[in-house]
Amino acid sequence: MNKTLQELADYLGGHVVGDPTVSIGGLGTLDTATEGQITFLANTKYALKVKTTRATAIIIPPNADPFDRNALVVASPYLAFAKLLALYSAKPRIVKGIMDGAFVDNGAVIGKEASVYPGTFIADGVQIGDRVTLHPNVTLYEGVVVGDDVTLHAGVSVREGCRIGNRVTIHNGTVIGGDGFGYAPDGHSWIKIPQIGNVVIEDDVEIGANSAVDRAALETTRIGRGTKIDNLVQVAHNCLVGEDCIIVAQAGIAGSVKLGRHVTLGGQVAVVDHAVIGDNAMISGQSGVFGNVASGAILSGTPAISHQARLRAAAVFPHLPEMRKTLARMGNRLTKVEEQQLEPPRIAPLAVV
Amino acid sequence: MNKTLQELADYLGGHVVGDPTVSIGGLGTLDTATEGQITFLANTKYALKVKTTRATAIIIPPNADPFDRNALVVASPYLAFAKLLALYSAKPRIVKGIMDGAFVDNGAVIGKEASVYPGTFIADGVQIGDRVTLHPNVTLYEGVVVGDDVTLHAGVSVREGCRIGNRVTIHNGTVIGGDGFGYAPDGHSWIKIPQIGNVVIEDDVEIGANSAVDRAALETTRIGRGTKIDNLVQVAHNCLVGEDCIIVAQAGIAGSVKLGRHVTLGGQVAVVDHAVIGDNAMISGQSGVFGNVASGAILSGTPAISHQARLRAAAVFPHLPEMRKTLARMGNRLTKVEEQQLEPPRIAPLAVV
Amino acid sequence: MNKTLQELADYLGGHVVGDPTVSIGGLGTLDTATEGQITFLANTKYALKVKTTRATAIIIPPNADPFDRNALVVASPYLAFAKLLALYSAKPRIVKGIMDGAFVDNGAVIGKEASVYPGTFIADGVQIGDRVTLHPNVTLYEGVVVGDDVTLHAGVSVREGCRIGNRVTIHNGTVIGGDGFGYAPDGHSWIKIPQIGNVVIEDDVEIGANSAVDRAALETTRIGRGTKIDNLVQVAHNCLVGEDCIIVAQAGIAGSVKLGRHVTLGGQVAVVDHAVIGDNAMISGQSGVFGNVASGAILSGTPAISHQARLRAAAVFPHLPEMRKTLARMGNRLTKVEEQQLEPPRIAPLAVV
Repeated sequence: MNKTLQELADYLGGHVVGDPTVSIGGLGTLDTATEGQITFLANTKYALKVKTTRATAIIIPPNADPFDRNALVVASPYLAFAKLLALYSAKPRIVKGIMDGAFVDNGAVIGKEASVYPGTFIADGVQIGDRVTLHPNVTLYEGVVVGDDVTLHAGVSVREGCRIGNRVTIHNGTVIGGDGFGYAPDGHSWIKIPQIGNVVIEDDVEIGANSAVDRAALETTRIGRGTKIDNLVQVAHNCLVGEDCIIVAQAGIAGSVKLGRHVTLGGQVAVVDHAVIGDNAMISGQSGVFGNVASGAILSGTPAISHQARLRAAAVFPHLPEMRKTLARMGNRLTKVEEQQLEPPRIAPLAVV
Repeated sequence: MNKTLQELADYLGGHVVGDPTVSIGGLGTLDTATEGQITFLANTKYALKVKTTRATAIIIPPNADPFDRNALVVASPYLAFAKLLALYSAKPRIVKGIMDGAFVDNGAVIGKEASVYPGTFIADGVQIGDRVTLHPNVTLYEGVVVGDDVTLHAGVSVREGCRIGNRVTIHNGTVIGGDGFGYAPDGHSWIKIPQIGNVVIEDDVEIGANSAVDRAALETTRIGRGTKIDNLVQVAHNCLVGEDCIIVAQAGIAGSVKLGRHVTLGGQVAVVDHAVIGDNAMISGQSGVFGNVASGAILSGTPAISHQARLRAAAVFPHLPEMRKTLARMGNRLTKVEEQQLEPPRIAPLAVV
Repeated sequence: MNKTLQELADYLGGHVVGDPTVSIGGLGTLDTATEGQITFLANTKYALKVKTTRATAIIIPPNADPFDRNALVVASPYLAFAKLLALYSAKPRIVKGIMDGAFVDNGAVIGKEASVYPGTFIADGVQIGDRVTLHPNVTLYEGVVVGDDVTLHAGVSVREGCRIGNRVTIHNGTVIGGDGFGYAPDGHSWIKIPQIGNVVIEDDVEIGANSAVDRAALETTRIGRGTKIDNLVQVAHNCLVGEDCIIVAQAGIAGSVKLGRHVTLGGQVAVVDHAVIGDNAMISGQSGVFGNVASGAILSGTPAISHQARLRAAAVFPHLPEMRKTLARMGNRLTKVEEQQLEPPRIAPLAVV
């Protein structure tokens, strides 16, 4: 597929600097793009590469120097690049139908234009929308509901009674609706608390590989519309995750946590049970959140404190042993000074005499 | 299913305050329960909700005020609730038999009343007890032994020669008996140490989704009776986990670790190889255990120290930059004071005169 | 299988002390080995066990005391043990062919002596080398290339266009080539950046269970020859992992990270995106690497600093509350001392009089 630079500008809502008729057949990075490709400048620290890239055109922000190259000026080059990549890499969806070796219960309903691969199991009472792709070895337990335009990759499990919205993609091996981790102590042993709630995944959610979203004990664990979850993430029972959140790989959210909208959890973050995290809060990687977090807060460390405070504190860590010694030495010096002040001044006898 | 409050009291071993004949058809939380349901007061901070909940009856501890409501008094309302939830949510197990599309080797033995779903593979030499449910796409390698009343969810793998006890539940995608991570350095490269031991999961263990318990190098990795393991947990080769432990999501236990009985590891805890952790020890979330832990210890942080000490230390972190500056300033002030003391007293000339 | 001690010495390139004709039929640890077995002394702290082990022979390093036992002296007993374990535990590979219930697309090519188990799905355009074992429920998407002598365990997914080298082993549930986690902000929502690159796993790599290696956005995520990756590890898009690295369980590497050769990442380590880690660097467990790391560095903590500095700093943590109080008290004492110095000496009036 080839488009002129002007066609791309029209598609993205930007304007061209240079030759609007050059033909663009693909995309590359500033370093790897070749002739006939377009690249983008997202970080001003690479502004000089605009001069030297072999790309035929460069997507730049309004204030960047095009260095006499063909440029496409847009508010957000990164977003523009994402949209062009989608445009150039789009492939027509192939409808496979229900393939041999897929197991579909008679009590299941599947919409139009489905692709259901071998080894996939669809239980009684499952309802599936239109244009759904179920890759091999997906398992949908009884009563699962799946919306339109959903892709579930190989090995995904969706447990009994869970609901998946429209335009949801779940990558390989992820488990939706495993039992929440709840036990009551009975003297020495642990008595299981039945987990009879479910999980609801709202529209436009994407979840990575080998993650786990547990079913609620009684009600619903919910992942809000547009939220994106990375690989190996744990979402425990009864969590309510808001819309448009970003949860990076290996983060873990304990039971009954409430995330506002547009919250970002960095990789390997842990959030203690029942915490409430406000809208737009950002928790940096590996932090441990031990309580509620205000909207818009940027936290870091374990227990998480203000990101700036955390960086300043951590900068002191290497000096702690020396600080401890200094403190001890200063204590001794101070004691000496105090003892001298309490002694009668050495000069006094002379003075009195 | 409906039971009178008195019937529930008899079942749980508690006593009724109020009307023992009211009919209970289900359960809810203090906030969500409706008429005809029972709820429970587990945390005294919600004691006033007993007054206002719409539930027909409330399970309360001995010292709580029933506020003239119908109450069922028991020692542990939370445990009582767990038991009632199991009672009300119990469904008869449906025996599916060996379904079409399940692959069972001729050399495998399967007990009575099994449900073996499509896509499940049972290798030569596998022995399976009675009333076992193997969901779709479970893989049991050669020589695996599975006890009675076991449920393995979709996508579980149990590798060659591993043994699963009675009444064990393993959730989706968990891997029992993958190779331990052992290599010997040979100059620049790594030579694999064959992992020829196995894993033994004792009775009444439950393991969450997408966890991994590695086979021992030579002997056995063991998960003790009644232990509960959450999602995405790593148990490395040769670990010996005691009975009735609780291991929360994303915790990782390195090789040859020994956990006593009733140990709790919080979420994302890491335990260094060969550590020995005593009975009833509790390690709080995200802690790193770098050595042995005494029985009953409550530890926190990386490296883990006493939980209280850790909280007190962490509370100082935000003050460290200011402490460092104060220390420097005090050093200067002290030096001045010391210099003045060493000078001949300014008063001396006057006195002498 | 039985070999004389001399035969084992010849195989390993060591020499015998004691009786070279004794027959060895297997291996055990210093504590568990029985007659007819060989064991090894890897850690000098157990040197006295050489005296008492029931093993018929012991592999020892050059400077160890054989205590009049039959010994096999080699430079690295641990490496020798690994090699003997491989020798004694080797089993002939059984060629199963394409088993019933495996789904192989007509457009796929499979080499000689394959074992392809039921439930495995091989898509169009897949090319597979010789002597490959694909356990049940493996899924190979379109255009995947797999080398010779590869073993993929049950539930592994390899996504479209990814390449697996020779002699690679991947354990159960691991996902190669899931989409990288890339979204561009569009006001409130997140626009997916298509991930159209792939993953290349080079020769002699081993990857544990339930790990995830994401496909690159545009180019290739690469795992270098001989690298060993443990369970539940996250490797994000565009990472370039060098040769002979060791990545321990639950470590996570963010996007575009570059690891040199022979780098070690401990368990639960996190590495920030775009970091460059030099050859032979070692990052201790649970550390957070927030920037580049020099070759050969040994780092620890979050943010990671020199391992020794980190241990010394952490040793001060429990003393921080007391240090803070001491600092405040010393400030007060110092102020008093300073005030006294500013006062006219109490003795002065006397002196003047």
